[in-house]
Amino acid sequence: MQLGVCYYPEQWPRAMWADDAQRMVELGITHVRIAEFAWSRMEPRAGEFDWQWLDEAVETLAKAGLKLVLGTPSASPPKWLVDAHPDVLPVRADGARWRFGSRRHYDISSDTYRRECVRIVTAMAKRYGRHSSIVAWQTDNELGCHDTVPSYSAAALQRFHAWLQRRYATIGALNDAWGNVFWSMEYPSFDAIGLPTLTPTDANPIHLLDFRRFMSDEVASFHREQIEVLREHAPNADLLHNFMGFFTTFDHYRFAADNAIDVAAWDSYPIARTESIALPEEQKARFARTGHPDVSAFDHDRYRGIGGGRFWVMEQQAGPVNWASCNPIPAPGMVRLWAYEAFAHGAELVSYFRWRQCPYAQEQMHSGLNLPNDELSPGGLEVQRAAREIAGSTALSTLAAPARAATALVFDYETQWMFEIQRHGKGFDYQTLAFDYYESLRELGLDVDIVSSRADLSRYQLVVVPSLAVIDAALVEQIARSNAQWVFGPRSGSKTDAFAIPGNLPPGALQRALPIQVLEVETLRSTLAPALSIDGTEGYALHWREHVRANGKTRIAARFDDAWPALLTHGNVRYVAGWLSHELHRTLLRQAARDSGLDTQVLADGLRLRRRGGLTFAFNFGAQPVQAPAPRNATFVLGEPRLNTGDVCAWKDA
Amino acid sequence: MQLGVCYYPEQWPRAMWADDAQRMVELGITHVRIAEFAWSRMEPRAGEFDWQWLDEAVETLAKAGLKLVLGTPSASPPKWLVDAHPDVLPVRADGARWRFGSRRHYDISSDTYRRECVRIVTAMAKRYGRHSSIVAWQTDNELGCHDTVPSYSAAALQRFHAWLQRRYATIGALNDAWGNVFWSMEYPSFDAIGLPTLTPTDANPIHLLDFRRFMSDEVASFHREQIEVLREHAPNADLLHNFMGFFTTFDHYRFAADNAIDVAAWDSYPIARTESIALPEEQKARFARTGHPDVSAFDHDRYRGIGGGRFWVMEQQAGPVNWASCNPIPAPGMVRLWAYEAFAHGAELVSYFRWRQCPYAQEQMHSGLNLPNDELSPGGLEVQRAAREIAGSTALSTLAAPARAATALVFDYETQWMFEIQRHGKGFDYQTLAFDYYESLRELGLDVDIVSSRADLSRYQLVVVPSLAVIDAALVEQIARSNAQWVFGPRSGSKTDAFAIPGNLPPGALQRALPIQVLEVETLRSTLAPALSIDGTEGYALHWREHVRANGKTRIAARFDDAWPALLTHGNVRYVAGWLSHELHRTLLRQAARDSGLDTQVLADGLRLRRRGGLTFAFNFGAQPVQAPAPRNATFVLGEPRLNTGDVCAWKDA
Amino acid sequence: MQLGVCYYPEQWPRAMWADDAQRMVELGITHVRIAEFAWSRMEPRAGEFDWQWLDEAVETLAKAGLKLVLGTPSASPPKWLVDAHPDVLPVRADGARWRFGSRRHYDISSDTYRRECVRIVTAMAKRYGRHSSIVAWQTDNELGCHDTVPSYSAAALQRFHAWLQRRYATIGALNDAWGNVFWSMEYPSFDAIGLPTLTPTDANPIHLLDFRRFMSDEVASFHREQIEVLREHAPNADLLHNFMGFFTTFDHYRFAADNAIDVAAWDSYPIARTESIALPEEQKARFARTGHPDVSAFDHDRYRGIGGGRFWVMEQQAGPVNWASCNPIPAPGMVRLWAYEAFAHGAELVSYFRWRQCPYAQEQMHSGLNLPNDELSPGGLEVQRAAREIAGSTALSTLAAPARAATALVFDYETQWMFEIQRHGKGFDYQTLAFDYYESLRELGLDVDIVSSRADLSRYQLVVVPSLAVIDAALVEQIARSNAQWVFGPRSGSKTDAFAIPGNLPPGALQRALPIQVLEVETLRSTLAPALSIDGTEGYALHWREHVRANGKTRIAARFDDAWPALLTHGNVRYVAGWLSHELHRTLLRQAARDSGLDTQVLADGLRLRRRGGLTFAFNFGAQPVQAPAPRNATFVLGEPRLNTGDVCAWKDA
Repeated sequence: MQLGVCYYPEQWPRAMWADDAQRMVELGITHVRIAEFAWSRMEPRAGEFDWQWLDEAVETLAKAGLKLVLGTPSASPPKWLVDAHPDVLPVRADGARWRFGSRRHYDISSDTYRRECVRIVTAMAKRYGRHSSIVAWQTDNELGCHDTVPSYSAAALQRFHAWLQRRYATIGALNDAWGNVFWSMEYPSFDAIGLPTLTPTDANPIHLLDFRRFMSDEVASFHREQIEVLREHAPNADLLHNFMGFFTTFDHYRFAADNAIDVAAWDSYPIARTESIALPEEQKARFARTGHPDVSAFDHDRYRGIGGGRFWVMEQQAGPVNWASCNPIPAPGMVRLWAYEAFAHGAELVSYFRWRQCPYAQEQMHSGLNLPNDELSPGGLEVQRAAREIAGSTALSTLAAPARAATALVFDYETQWMFEIQRHGKGFDYQTLAFDYYESLRELGLDVDIVSSRADLSRYQLVVVPSLAVIDAALVEQIARSNAQWVFGPRSGSKTDAFAIPGNLPPGALQRALPIQVLEVETLRSTLAPALSIDGTEGYALHWREHVRANGKTRIAARFDDAWPALLTHGNVRYVAGWLSHELHRTLLRQAARDSGLDTQVLADGLRLRRRGGLTFAFNFGAQPVQAPAPRNATFVLGEPRLNTGDVCAWKDA
Repeated sequence: MQLGVCYYPEQWPRAMWADDAQRMVELGITHVRIAEFAWSRMEPRAGEFDWQWLDEAVETLAKAGLKLVLGTPSASPPKWLVDAHPDVLPVRADGARWRFGSRRHYDISSDTYRRECVRIVTAMAKRYGRHSSIVAWQTDNELGCHDTVPSYSAAALQRFHAWLQRRYATIGALNDAWGNVFWSMEYPSFDAIGLPTLTPTDANPIHLLDFRRFMSDEVASFHREQIEVLREHAPNADLLHNFMGFFTTFDHYRFAADNAIDVAAWDSYPIARTESIALPEEQKARFARTGHPDVSAFDHDRYRGIGGGRFWVMEQQAGPVNWASCNPIPAPGMVRLWAYEAFAHGAELVSYFRWRQCPYAQEQMHSGLNLPNDELSPGGLEVQRAAREIAGSTALSTLAAPARAATALVFDYETQWMFEIQRHGKGFDYQTLAFDYYESLRELGLDVDIVSSRADLSRYQLVVVPSLAVIDAALVEQIARSNAQWVFGPRSGSKTDAFAIPGNLPPGALQRALPIQVLEVETLRSTLAPALSIDGTEGYALHWREHVRANGKTRIAARFDDAWPALLTHGNVRYVAGWLSHELHRTLLRQAARDSGLDTQVLADGLRLRRRGGLTFAFNFGAQPVQAPAPRNATFVLGEPRLNTGDVCAWKDA
Repeated sequence: MQLGVCYYPEQWPRAMWADDAQRMVELGITHVRIAEFAWSRMEPRAGEFDWQWLDEAVETLAKAGLKLVLGTPSASPPKWLVDAHPDVLPVRADGARWRFGSRRHYDISSDTYRRECVRIVTAMAKRYGRHSSIVAWQTDNELGCHDTVPSYSAAALQRFHAWLQRRYATIGALNDAWGNVFWSMEYPSFDAIGLPTLTPTDANPIHLLDFRRFMSDEVASFHREQIEVLREHAPNADLLHNFMGFFTTFDHYRFAADNAIDVAAWDSYPIARTESIALPEEQKARFARTGHPDVSAFDHDRYRGIGGGRFWVMEQQAGPVNWASCNPIPAPGMVRLWAYEAFAHGAELVSYFRWRQCPYAQEQMHSGLNLPNDELSPGGLEVQRAAREIAGSTALSTLAAPARAATALVFDYETQWMFEIQRHGKGFDYQTLAFDYYESLRELGLDVDIVSSRADLSRYQLVVVPSLAVIDAALVEQIARSNAQWVFGPRSGSKTDAFAIPGNLPPGALQRALPIQVLEVETLRSTLAPALSIDGTEGYALHWREHVRANGKTRIAARFDDAWPALLTHGNVRYVAGWLSHELHRTLLRQAARDSGLDTQVLADGLRLRRRGGLTFAFNFGAQPVQAPAPRNATFVLGEPRLNTGDVCAWKDA
């Protein structure tokens, strides 16, 4: 449980650096991230490097005993680079070229830009790669942010052609796989294929999907080019990238594969995220000052999986921010709570953004641990408290890593892409559905691992698949070998890898484990809400519903009010024929958890639990005080069982 | 009463064709439409034709006894054509050029593309034009769909110049007619005129209108170029185009004139249409699974008129579709009901879209009569039932064409364009107003002919003109000679042919039949609702209201609560000085119907009637069971008087 | 109190001109504005002038005894000019170039266009500058309308570079001032700077602000180029421009400085403005037919200040208009009321738009004093009544100019720009906040001067500053010397001139007068509404709230329900730590007015008062009749104390 901070020495007079370092250490901070936007200072003109200031900044921080995370500056190419190579600017879907003047103004497919990035990263890595205080390197910053991926540039098109050729070998194979006979869309050659934009009506969904797959690979290869340099010159450092929350533009499993990262780091802004995602308005209102209780946890659990168990919060909200449509001040206690929450979910490090609020430029309304006048901000004071608590508690400061959970939730990036390309109705969003399942599990007090459908799932007792567009034979085999309870949500198995409907109808290969067939599907306007009840819980379907036929020995465990099956079971497999209202999701998952031998409870509103290293942490995100469900004689290592809004406590497990 | 289907042999293995044909016949299908998107298979490379597959498909279907409708493939130019002639791609209003990758990616004004279309249609027509099983040809597919008309291309501009020169002869005449002295908009020559787009504020409304008139003519002439080829090479076939519902981009009366079509065919998707058009949210909710009771009937009646009495449904919704913002599954019975509804309104053929759901490409979520696994879909089973009912009933299978109705509703395309260009308030939409009048007539149990204002109206008892922007002398003369009751809605006669206010104020020439003058007009926010009552029915104006002065002997039959006239009458002519709430429209039309000697009744909610060939059909689109208003001793040839949701019955008229 | 009208002789047959002039005089009109869109008639081809028609029009009007206002035609460059110089067309933020076909299709930064404008204005001014009947000249028309300012053209970029060089002298100074070290945004030279558009995320706020400052200066210099010509050739005429209501694209104080205008004229459309601005829906509904009671008054008071005491209404709404999203007909009486309202606020002239409704082109749905058939419109009849009343009353026809008010409201254009660039939350709009304060003062019966923060404020008793982004030393010195009560709203002093947070935290320099510091700020979703009460009035904060620390002897006069200060006072200065609900604004301003010795009363709903030249005018914009608060024995020179909707009265002050 270590605390960090993001710091930009180039933005402040050198005279402040030593004092800043000293105050960081006093606050209890151990890690400092620097340099990730400083290209114009490292290389003020093409080929002219100025390392002096960075040397001094590194030494000043290191001398104070701080560990450093160095960021590569590729998210902000300087003006001289853009002027020398205008083709590095990315292109929007409508053909307009983005311009210099903010950040992320680069085309991830530009060979020129990739070459420039390798050049600057090599220069940095050679100079600082073996510095003993530099314990980690971050590539770029928030890859994919601001919709600059995908880019619709000529470079992207050229590399897309090569990608397609590798995937399909011949244009005939591509035309067949894509079904281009439809609407005479057949291509005479790979070179004849365009980027899927500006078509009068929908482009072929597989065209769109392959472009997203390609772009996901572009993001990964862009990162890997830097990683290769860093592995060579910084062999002892942890290498990472700072991912974003609720962000699915690229496949993070593929990105992380083959040791492309050592730890999954991500940037956590719970309040702005709660305002921005597709939550019901009522929840946005309730949690406007605390963030939704699961909005950070979801990504903590997701990135812990992506990092193979190791994850950091690289940027943690430290107060009000600037970028959501409304930016309230967090409730008292939340800045401290978020740190404990991350630790409870397994974070090794929680690093706050940023040391001191910058009074100028784009982020001047983004708070930090210090106000612009250099006094600790309200958030800074909360971090000070947390740091002292941790330092004063052996139980907290020596906490072991979290154990594998008993419950797995499968999250799949391609499913997100497929159902974005083909929502079929305006309300359908896969990640939102997955989040609803996740929230249900968390309300039941369960710890959750979020995993890939290709992970080894054999050691879980409960496997929840909110949906999975493509179900392959390997997964069906895992089910066959499994004693766990399996829950599949709607649209599971509804597509082939080539974005087509399986020949045996959905759920495709899953029929081997669960003999059913989906005859017709529908998207629902809010006024259409087929009702049902499960175990006495009343509810209805929203967004999506299927007409399913039960084959073989499949049992119909619940029906909609028009008699169509709602919940079908076969052995240890459940299938849900619609997007159900939240309480129904919770009830059916509670059934499944019970059948898998897991204890559950419905937690008080806004209360969440998480276990790590022999401790159970409890957090109150709700508006009312709650009592943590600790055993009567529990030993508390933090706080007390009565939790006001924003409070946290932790006790030793029996 | 014949049933058809749309079929795409190129999308399926040849091994399936014969079985498909056999199963179609068994289902009761007599007509099959094919080929309309298959250009890349007919001509895989420029000038290299491959007819072998199409020959075989035609023969296979013909041999099974099916009649064929052949579509020309001009809605989907292949990639080699686009690459050879990039100028065939259309241009958006913002100047961006549409790209290949879906369909309708062609500029209707491109001379190159027109030449290419004549070339492929000639080749097709020479080969198949005299085939005895090919009973009809369809040009293109859904002309104007996906907003590719208008195109803002250089070709369009050049042809627009020529069109203007033909219309105005001299630039001085154009400047005068357009009123270009306003804002110094005068043009030195025809060539100096641009397309009306990207102007800092509104373009001159007559500039916009003439561009719409021109584009409407472009659509018609594009079609006629193909018709000329087909008339020569397929002299015995019915020639048609498949129009769309609620679609007003071009003037269908002008399109159909001079025998440009033999039958008006259109594509009917009642549920997606109900979701898409500007209906009150409450109605969208009520009819989400049945479609609004009048949404298909409106176009059945409109296209029966456009086809001079002959119309087909070329594509009929067969289950859930993919393109509305929400896509519910139809209520049980609707797929069957829609066929009877079309027949009752006079359809010769109802052809379902499509034979089998295509598991890949853009329309994979669009249902058909068969599921992707080749079993009959729920909709397919309903068609099977209807086909057997018809085959088993002489009354149904030998039904005569419908008689002329006693009630005419005038629908005018230029009025739509004028009031789209100049809504004056965001809620005003002419077609929606016309639909509200139509709905009122249908709720009263009346059969309606939808006709052009230039039609011979002398044999109607009731003529309803929801609005008509330009009233010409010929219409005033028809009124003078008529014994019918005439009802004119607001904005009637408010414009000249040159899109100006008549010198004698609105309603212009109508003042000769009805001496009134419109002094001022207003558009109404929803909170402004001038109240009134007619014959005890309470209501209010919405969207639009006029301050009208009654001249001469004009009688004020109803007033708004601020004393301005609401309903004015003179002889057999009524004028309505606002857009009234629905029940008021129904009451005033009931008055007019009564005065014209027509019997009316207010039908039960969701119930509709239609008479054809001595039968009265009744349909229940409502949520509750209703009793059809058949005479006590009526002979039923279909169903029974008690109608559940989705039910239909028919009885012999006394 | 004089009445005018806008007239377009070029739009009507010459045979009508003399009669029009005669009827104007009969109606009581004294001033006629002409010519401002007639370039294509003055100069039909490049360099070929046709003055004959304009000579005749001028003489016809002058002979009837009318005074003329001549408009320069630069708002509508003719087609031949645009064709000869396509670079005069402006460019949108997305890079698209606007086209000919409406008006305002010119780039204000185009040297070519500026040269052409000086040329045509010189020709006009030489011909008509010393005509005795031409009493005023108007430059252009509604500068900045239709979002053609800013233009993102190459010409604008070039002039922006020069403007920046003048402001910052060296690129290093600019990089420092802009904080371009942030995100490596440093520029190597002025020429390397782009226009702030098409950046993947927010551009640097100071980049955006300096571009707005530059564009504001461009508007002013464009106008001044014409003024210089007119001063030389029309030395005796009043020079003016017709500004718009609620329009803040350029700084009107800077525009008017150095005698660039003699009188501030503006165009008043109360009903369309009420529909268009960010008022609560409830207010839009209540005042849909009268206009909001303060929507015209706000700009009357603003432009009276900008004109140094002299202001005209150049265009006054005369009936329903065409350009809002809904366009209702004004309530009876309003067209007359608006004239008296303008006079009461100090207008010298109220000129109606327009003489006769034009039946063709873009404004055909815009009413005038005459209908298209040349009879007086309902609005025309109201003007006739007002003209007769004024002519018949010495008190009205010889009314003195209004005195300075006791209350000043500071309005600042740069504050508008800064908070548009950085709303921080979607609901924050500075002008709307200023309007809410203004409305509160007016509901209290106070007369208000709207002034610049740089004005001499020493003679006011109450100074209200709804917000002021940058507070400079000069203002702090004014406070120090002042005996007035000062009220500062939220975000006051929150920025430096370089768009940064002050080093001593907000409110920056204001801390010298009021020792407080703003620690954190938040924007509020509508469900977050911190409650408070002031003097028994209950309410809440919306849109914006601050966490403020009271330093020194600052007193906390009210707190939010979470204990944070809401109202802080120190001596004669108040600070409001949030955007309060309307009644709270009124209560706190009533406190401040009381403390400054001003009498207030809460007027009846919809009632407003205004004093001028010894008279008090009362206006009823409300739906219910009200009693004007005249003294018992008041002498009425207009109307009577009981006021129905749309009524006005005036009495002599005791």
